[in-house]
Amino acid sequence: MQKLWSLPCPPRIFMAASAVGKEEYRGPLGEKFDYHDDTDRFGGDTWEHAEEGLAYKTLTLALNKAHLLPESLDLLLAGDLQNQCVATSTGLLPFGAPFLGLYGACSTAGLGLLVAALALAATDAVRTAAVVTTSHNCAAERQFRTPLEYGAQRTPTAQWTATAGGAFLLARDRGRVALPALMAGRVVDSGLSDAANMGAAMAPAAADSLLCYFAQSGDSPAAYDAVVTGDLGREGSAMLSYLLEGQGLFLGEKHLDCGKLLYDFNRQDVHAGGSGCGCSAAVLAAHFLPLLESGAMRNILFIATGALMSPSSLQQGGRVLGIAPAVRLSHVEESDG
Amino acid sequence: MQKLWSLPCPPRIFMAASAVGKEEYRGPLGEKFDYHDDTDRFGGDTWEHAEEGLAYKTLTLALNKAHLLPESLDLLLAGDLQNQCVATSTGLLPFGAPFLGLYGACSTAGLGLLVAALALAATDAVRTAAVVTTSHNCAAERQFRTPLEYGAQRTPTAQWTATAGGAFLLARDRGRVALPALMAGRVVDSGLSDAANMGAAMAPAAADSLLCYFAQSGDSPAAYDAVVTGDLGREGSAMLSYLLEGQGLFLGEKHLDCGKLLYDFNRQDVHAGGSGCGCSAAVLAAHFLPLLESGAMRNILFIATGALMSPSSLQQGGRVLGIAPAVRLSHVEESDG
Repeated sequence: MQKLWSLPCPPRIFMAASAVGKEEYRGPLGEKFDYHDDTDRFGGDTWEHAEEGLAYKTLTLALNKAHLLPESLDLLLAGDLQNQCVATSTGLLPFGAPFLGLYGACSTAGLGLLVAALALAATDAVRTAAVVTTSHNCAAERQFRTPLEYGAQRTPTAQWTATAGGAFLLARDRGRVALPALMAGRVVDSGLSDAANMGAAMAPAAADSLLCYFAQSGDSPAAYDAVVTGDLGREGSAMLSYLLEGQGLFLGEKHLDCGKLLYDFNRQDVHAGGSGCGCSAAVLAAHFLPLLESGAMRNILFIATGALMSPSSLQQGGRVLGIAPAVRLSHVEESDG
Repeated sequence: MQKLWSLPCPPRIFMAASAVGKEEYRGPLGEKFDYHDDTDRFGGDTWEHAEEGLAYKTLTLALNKAHLLPESLDLLLAGDLQNQCVATSTGLLPFGAPFLGLYGACSTAGLGLLVAALALAATDAVRTAAVVTTSHNCAAERQFRTPLEYGAQRTPTAQWTATAGGAFLLARDRGRVALPALMAGRVVDSGLSDAANMGAAMAPAAADSLLCYFAQSGDSPAAYDAVVTGDLGREGSAMLSYLLEGQGLFLGEKHLDCGKLLYDFNRQDVHAGGSGCGCSAAVLAAHFLPLLESGAMRNILFIATGALMSPSSLQQGGRVLGIAPAVRLSHVEESDG
């Protein structure tokens, strides 16, 4: 049983920003994102450089919205899907901030919020922290599957890596969204080795974290306005319901999935839905955080979902492992900031 | 200027373990490692699987030495050099512990100790944390350069990725080595793009952290028994001295480098010295920690060094970025544990 960690003085998110590509802007949440680039290039000359530009743009937006200079960042936590996480380490180089590199595959936004909250709670020397995660469809296709130019066919369970970035600014004493409870998630063997069915492969990890979370917290899902998974998509969301209901946990309409919210399945050919480090980050930043800030939502449970695998590990007979860090996000009535 | 973070109740390392391959066992520290495998295979049928076996073995050794069951781990932090960090996520799957994936290239041991210390300081719910990092020469050669079978020539500045793993167990109230001060390190552009000269590419990041550390702490190097860098090797260590002395900071014989200590340059053809996530972890675990535990050393400054790049990023004209998280390690007179 995983333990739930509660923080006596919960750190808060006081600003967030998002930037997306063309397809994400065309989706149902399009107008909510702070920025979009219809070329998907973000100033880069390759898709990999485009993702670096996306990371830079996303954090720049967040700092500008908060009227902060890069020098005010005591800590920057970031990760992406490119090998050796070069999109964020390179894209965020100009900020010159103390840097912690993270790898949680598509769950990195949750992992980043969790580690940022720990850092803010641990030492007075960290007063302002930023979390940035990105993904780029074309960079991910080239690295994990085939370059777009090959025109490879996709299976119905395949997901669409979002071209998206999300940035979050956290502090101890300002902002209207607190992080009072955290759960790291543990690595769960899905038993699956199909790289075109990541949703199903991540569902057992999400189920593990959810079952542990509700058992440890004593809460019922009714206490939450939404239980938001990162990027299970249609296939993974159905699998999650199946796994949870077998254990007597019914989420019903409380369950929302960022990978399903990001696109319009009737108009957009994204198969099982969105995925990627940037998917949950951008949807959380642009859609859920404003609802929590305004008080339209009081509590959500955010469970980021990641598939831990590499093309090599699957070629060598490995399975897709899942992980699902969980963060409770709660509306704070009064901001002291 | 990076900030130094001090922790009022510094977490401690209470156990460590190391496992190495054939070449590392043949080196000057060979007898100090807890385990070695002369086949370099650690039970795996591929080099990538061998590294998974190495990760599993290393943490198993640490838990066994501490007479702990895996269930006592409240948190497991890990990282490696394989794409998507699959060696540690897969190799450590059987422990079933709450997991934070990290990516700091060869600096991951320092990054892991730093984040583990933050977690222990932040919440009473984390009482025991483990940090595990590994690298495997043959897996790294295949992924970053060429498969061994190609027999590629190495340049004199090239380093030898160590086949090594280190595991550290941390707690708040037991152990004789405390972590009273931490510095995250920031991403530094080396200006170099030569993947066969990682030492020089990491030296500017190490210099940045060292200059900030001594300026912020007010200490002089004389207050430390050793200033231990991760894996600068001969080339990078010379570069570090050059950079620091230009700024008036003289380390002299206080400076030791794990990548230089791991091998005997007269007997072993490792060119500029050792490198890899496991290099600094294994040398810290097997060589420096026992000296700190016994009181033979009272204080060391451990600066792990990482080169943030990927083969793709260099192919696309990118430069090797460096990062160097720093952790002060201090002897604790009395263990309360």
